[in-house]
Amino acid sequence: MSILEQTIKTIYPQDSSYRDLAKERLDQLALPHWALGDLMDLAIDLAGITRSLKPAVQGKAIVTMAGDHGVVAEGVSKFPQEVTSQMVHNFVNGGAGINALARQAGAEVVVVDMGVAADMDDLARQGKIINKKIGYGTNNIAKGAAMSAANAIRAVEAGIDIANELSGSVDIFGTGDMGIGNTTPSTAIAAVITGKSVAELTGRGTGLDDEQLAHKQQVITKILECNKPDPKNGIDILAKIGGFEIGGIAGLILGAAAQQKPVVVDGFISTAGALIAIAIEPFVRDYIVCAHRSMEPGHRFMQEKIGCRPLLDLNLRLGEGTGAALAMNLVEASVAVLTEVATFEEAAVAGADK
Amino acid sequence: MSILEQTIKTIYPQDSSYRDLAKERLDQLALPHWALGDLMDLAIDLAGITRSLKPAVQGKAIVTMAGDHGVVAEGVSKFPQEVTSQMVHNFVNGGAGINALARQAGAEVVVVDMGVAADMDDLARQGKIINKKIGYGTNNIAKGAAMSAANAIRAVEAGIDIANELSGSVDIFGTGDMGIGNTTPSTAIAAVITGKSVAELTGRGTGLDDEQLAHKQQVITKILECNKPDPKNGIDILAKIGGFEIGGIAGLILGAAAQQKPVVVDGFISTAGALIAIAIEPFVRDYIVCAHRSMEPGHRFMQEKIGCRPLLDLNLRLGEGTGAALAMNLVEASVAVLTEVATFEEAAVAGADK
Repeated sequence: MSILEQTIKTIYPQDSSYRDLAKERLDQLALPHWALGDLMDLAIDLAGITRSLKPAVQGKAIVTMAGDHGVVAEGVSKFPQEVTSQMVHNFVNGGAGINALARQAGAEVVVVDMGVAADMDDLARQGKIINKKIGYGTNNIAKGAAMSAANAIRAVEAGIDIANELSGSVDIFGTGDMGIGNTTPSTAIAAVITGKSVAELTGRGTGLDDEQLAHKQQVITKILECNKPDPKNGIDILAKIGGFEIGGIAGLILGAAAQQKPVVVDGFISTAGALIAIAIEPFVRDYIVCAHRSMEPGHRFMQEKIGCRPLLDLNLRLGEGTGAALAMNLVEASVAVLTEVATFEEAAVAGADK
Repeated sequence: MSILEQTIKTIYPQDSSYRDLAKERLDQLALPHWALGDLMDLAIDLAGITRSLKPAVQGKAIVTMAGDHGVVAEGVSKFPQEVTSQMVHNFVNGGAGINALARQAGAEVVVVDMGVAADMDDLARQGKIINKKIGYGTNNIAKGAAMSAANAIRAVEAGIDIANELSGSVDIFGTGDMGIGNTTPSTAIAAVITGKSVAELTGRGTGLDDEQLAHKQQVITKILECNKPDPKNGIDILAKIGGFEIGGIAGLILGAAAQQKPVVVDGFISTAGALIAIAIEPFVRDYIVCAHRSMEPGHRFMQEKIGCRPLLDLNLRLGEGTGAALAMNLVEASVAVLTEVATFEEAAVAGADK
């Protein structure tokens, strides 16, 4: 049995008995009923995910997956492809947005080369990144499949491996991405899985003007016509549309769910990875915390498909895992509510009139 | 010249030259332009507030002001009045929502007795709370003024004192409140200052049913008819409607602004304090960060009047400073973006096509 098959077999829904026990405690806290709102809902999820009334959230890691996309040949991004590898160096040097925000949240940043179109061996040898390179960028999906089905499985299994390797020290995972052009495959994945139109889903990515946006929509329409993935088959969607880092993210989410640990899903690209993971195994949905609502218009429809309400809405559109890092503070806060707040009885505080 | 008059004289708008310098740096960061959205807007505010490109945000304090309200005699709350003093003990013992969330955010909780209707001397003598008691609860505002004009000034000056005393070690202030019945005066203050109707503004507080809500609206209408405060006079509004803790919050905000430090304003009651502070000195608006959007329906109109977009929207309705504690992580994150993220040039990353 493959790693992927083995992993899928160990993913179960949240434990409803721990959810019930958490709710019972939260109902008794010395505050007006449910007055900490969404934090209390989140605390129930954490109990159900971790099978604990004291969910561990100390060890935090943002796993930032990098990969390139052959579709940049179609002119879908304002930035040149070499920015992907340049940003990997920036992550390693600690100067990127994700480094600053992960530090603030007390999270480690783990950088993975899933398929950057440049030689990253030096950084891998120095232990500064994890090497899971499947290729030097995907094929141009406007002209054919992103990768073989075998490589799609390899990409997902690479993400699972990383979740397994980190899970000794990591209690809570965050997803992140880097890949010039990757809003294009992510939008195509969203179109396949949500059934929404390309016009509704497509955004300006890193900053396209009206003409460039119209062109991007044409390219995405061409990708869908040319590849026709099966909307019910996550591996088929990943193989045909890509990319390598999206597969890695899907695998990380599957691996976290198998480890019964929460995974905070970042923005637009990470959510495309989450949709692939859910297509592979629907139970993973129970382990996903949606970090934020991206400025990309399609993000809303993707989150509605997953059925989660994002914690933050701050007009972010960076990726890298930045929204996930910000949201980790809220996950930690929700656990603090469950574990540190006294009940009416414990605090000797009078309750409400019935 | 009184402390209040002296303080008002030292409150200036944000420094536009530091705002410009911050924007210049943020424009050059190695990310798609303004891709960290609201965090970048907030970073500009922090630079303008602190007159620094490296705003200090290490020292964090939530100042939770407690006071009682004579209007509880009208049956506007589901909880008995003694809960105010019981919750002060809970704060001191570290078991309340604010303790859990402040710990997560690395903030100190400073509890102030502004006018609790119980003897708090023991806690004050032990140095566990700050004693600024103006009285044992306000008068019943459905029948007359909450307090004298002199006491309204004393309440505001108490808040200013605390900001001044703490400002040696505190870089960023958060406001908080505790006071059974205090959504009633807060709603009345909102009605006076926003001009919106009582029906639009009034919410269920700690959990009123439909009948109790209708009764609360009648009481608030009576308060407004009986007291007729001058909407342009913050001290008059405070004296006539109260409460002591709302005055303390207004003073804390004025004091923070005079110290050129950011003040994160929590929920519905804290925002009533902010409206009083702005009525006293409009320039304080520049120092206010709105933490979150409360479930109380009037909160939106109050924040629109202030002209600020809240950072969080998590269906909170607890007060105590809980939303402010959560938002402090975002303020700290915004400063990390300004001070820790490399520019395109520093990171040797290629920019976008022009």
